[in-house]
Amino acid sequence: MTVINLNLSINSERLLNRIQELGLTGLDNDNKRTRLAASDADKAGRDLLVTWMKEVGLEVEIDRIGNIFGIWYGTENRIEAPIMLGSHIDTVINAGMYDGCYGVLSGLEVIMTLKEKGFIPTRPIAVAAFTNEEGVRYQPDMMGSLVYAGGLSVDDVLATVGTDGTILGEELERIGYAGTKEPGFLKPHAYIELHIEQGPILDKMGLPIGAVENLQGISWQRITIEGVANHAGTTPTDMRRDAGLAAARVITYLRDRANASNGQTVATVGTIEFKPNAVNVIPSLATFTVDLRNPNKQRLQEEEQALANYLEELATTEEVTITSEPLVRFPPVTFDQTIVKLVEKAAGERGLQSRRMTSGAGHDAQMMARVCPTAMIFVPSIDGISHNPKEYTKDSDLIAGANVLLDVVCKLAGNQ
Amino acid sequence: MTVINLNLSINSERLLNRIQELGLTGLDNDNKRTRLAASDADKAGRDLLVTWMKEVGLEVEIDRIGNIFGIWYGTENRIEAPIMLGSHIDTVINAGMYDGCYGVLSGLEVIMTLKEKGFIPTRPIAVAAFTNEEGVRYQPDMMGSLVYAGGLSVDDVLATVGTDGTILGEELERIGYAGTKEPGFLKPHAYIELHIEQGPILDKMGLPIGAVENLQGISWQRITIEGVANHAGTTPTDMRRDAGLAAARVITYLRDRANASNGQTVATVGTIEFKPNAVNVIPSLATFTVDLRNPNKQRLQEEEQALANYLEELATTEEVTITSEPLVRFPPVTFDQTIVKLVEKAAGERGLQSRRMTSGAGHDAQMMARVCPTAMIFVPSIDGISHNPKEYTKDSDLIAGANVLLDVVCKLAGNQ
Repeated sequence: MTVINLNLSINSERLLNRIQELGLTGLDNDNKRTRLAASDADKAGRDLLVTWMKEVGLEVEIDRIGNIFGIWYGTENRIEAPIMLGSHIDTVINAGMYDGCYGVLSGLEVIMTLKEKGFIPTRPIAVAAFTNEEGVRYQPDMMGSLVYAGGLSVDDVLATVGTDGTILGEELERIGYAGTKEPGFLKPHAYIELHIEQGPILDKMGLPIGAVENLQGISWQRITIEGVANHAGTTPTDMRRDAGLAAARVITYLRDRANASNGQTVATVGTIEFKPNAVNVIPSLATFTVDLRNPNKQRLQEEEQALANYLEELATTEEVTITSEPLVRFPPVTFDQTIVKLVEKAAGERGLQSRRMTSGAGHDAQMMARVCPTAMIFVPSIDGISHNPKEYTKDSDLIAGANVLLDVVCKLAGNQ
Repeated sequence: MTVINLNLSINSERLLNRIQELGLTGLDNDNKRTRLAASDADKAGRDLLVTWMKEVGLEVEIDRIGNIFGIWYGTENRIEAPIMLGSHIDTVINAGMYDGCYGVLSGLEVIMTLKEKGFIPTRPIAVAAFTNEEGVRYQPDMMGSLVYAGGLSVDDVLATVGTDGTILGEELERIGYAGTKEPGFLKPHAYIELHIEQGPILDKMGLPIGAVENLQGISWQRITIEGVANHAGTTPTDMRRDAGLAAARVITYLRDRANASNGQTVATVGTIEFKPNAVNVIPSLATFTVDLRNPNKQRLQEEEQALANYLEELATTEEVTITSEPLVRFPPVTFDQTIVKLVEKAAGERGLQSRRMTSGAGHDAQMMARVCPTAMIFVPSIDGISHNPKEYTKDSDLIAGANVLLDVVCKLAGNQ
């Protein structure tokens, strides 16, 4: 008899209540929900989580970068590599309730359900809350998982100075979450992260489950175009070297490329500045950022190259000077096909429609994919809204996602 | 015998020296030339000008808005309408030496030359320095001439609050230039303004003289595009409502229209702002200004209408909301054909090549055109640079322009 046939389900009420309860920590003076990494508010959230972990008998470990692990060791599985579930509980400023927290609390809920139902796992099952996924107070984002996966030195990262002038290591000490375990001390058999989509696809399509098979590569660059400031009235069009016009041409070019990519590439110009920024002066300088994403490494490189070629051409046609500075580059991540299939299968067995999809946002899972087979499960975000108090996922979808996670864990840690 | 046959010429050395000397007033603490209207620096410039006017025996009159007039009355011409020459001596911040001052000092030089040579004018000849042409400290620009031409109430304008919180009327009192004459007290027979081009056309074409036959109409508007802020990674292209992209489309559309206008229309987007202005967030708001110019009233209206139509279309295709707020509107001005022809003829008789041209910038002449036959004479600006310490016109061109002005005045005030 396989465990799946038990038709276990998580305790919906308990999960929903805990999402609400954790959501009440970190309300700031304006009654906005803000739990920046290693702040007092973060401490309050962490304390609550650790209390819940201990209540159910998990072994709680904190590593040097402050990542929290609640581990359920069975009597005979201690030497096996654990199944790890998780996400993060830090937030952006004025955040919603679900981003990150949903994955952590569902992981905890899955473990509680399995324990209560007498499930005997072949491996330990751990739930992780990674430090500073949002990267608001300390850069970079996805910090805790990146350090955990060996992508950054823990000593370097502890010295990070925050936007408020604080040092991360000192703040972790202060709030009592500077642990002693070396990051990476648990090497998982698999990592599964349940998360709200933070995009509109599942909501628009009316699907409850996304089986996330990959995560877009991200390329950020800052482009600076130098033209010549001149009088808006006295300078004939053919004598203009208009940095602002050249910037506009780049923005429309990027959209045309994205349209031609068949939904694979997305491109965003989110910031822009003109100088001297006067109504009647042709801009001498335009500075803007480009955010390019594609789930395929080669395609992402092709997009970067196409943009570089276009900028070269544009510099000639508009008689401007263009420079480009790389800001951030994360290669695309392909998740583990076996786990992705398990997610699809679990959804199907529960009568939940799913689709394979790409994560457009970065997640701790993209770092954990460096060290073990990894995948993600998405549930719909109403209107795709996230990082906003309006962030919302229907209870039924939250429950469905957690049950799919439960089933996948049963299959990975079950006795067959 | 006509006066022209005397082959008078201005005193080049005196004119050039005075441009230098006036240029030395108003050097600020950073050694930058800044004579904002009704400031201490402006007073220093005014005092110097008035001293020069009095030295040559002109009657100096100040009107209530601070415009300065130096009037040469002949023994028998006092009842005739005067020929008025002039421009302004206030400057932008960190200005060049020529903008405005060249026209005022050349007007004074023409009168001095005529007096010295025993020319007997049939009409009074006046030189005017209009208050606050630049509009940097107090808005709007071309203020003194606009009030003089009856376009604004002097009482209203004297109450204008400056960027530094001062009140124009009080500042004029303080520097001793709150006169008692009502603006408009002299109704000219003709007004001629000699000015540097502030654009590149004469310099590029190697021509010393521009016979300015009209002045572009100016339409400024502020356009606000409202889209939806969304995650740059998780929002598929076809679900985006990207205010920044829509703004870029407007900018390239305006350039395409300008290119199609055969050099008549110029369009400039000089300022822009995105909100929230984050690398990985699709802009929810884009605000930018449009500066549209065309010397033909109907064509300018057509350009405005075409833009309005395009914005309506764009709002549909990009699913954004677009609003447009008019900021400034000056209709085009057509100068007096008789004077323009006199300018061309005078240039030709001196062996100076000239071309008919349009003023792209605003000038006091555009206001004076409301009250009397008016025209302008342009001389080249090297590389079209103005409002900048690098503003430069060759001495030979300065002299040529002043001599053409002299000849035109002789024809208009001569005994035939």
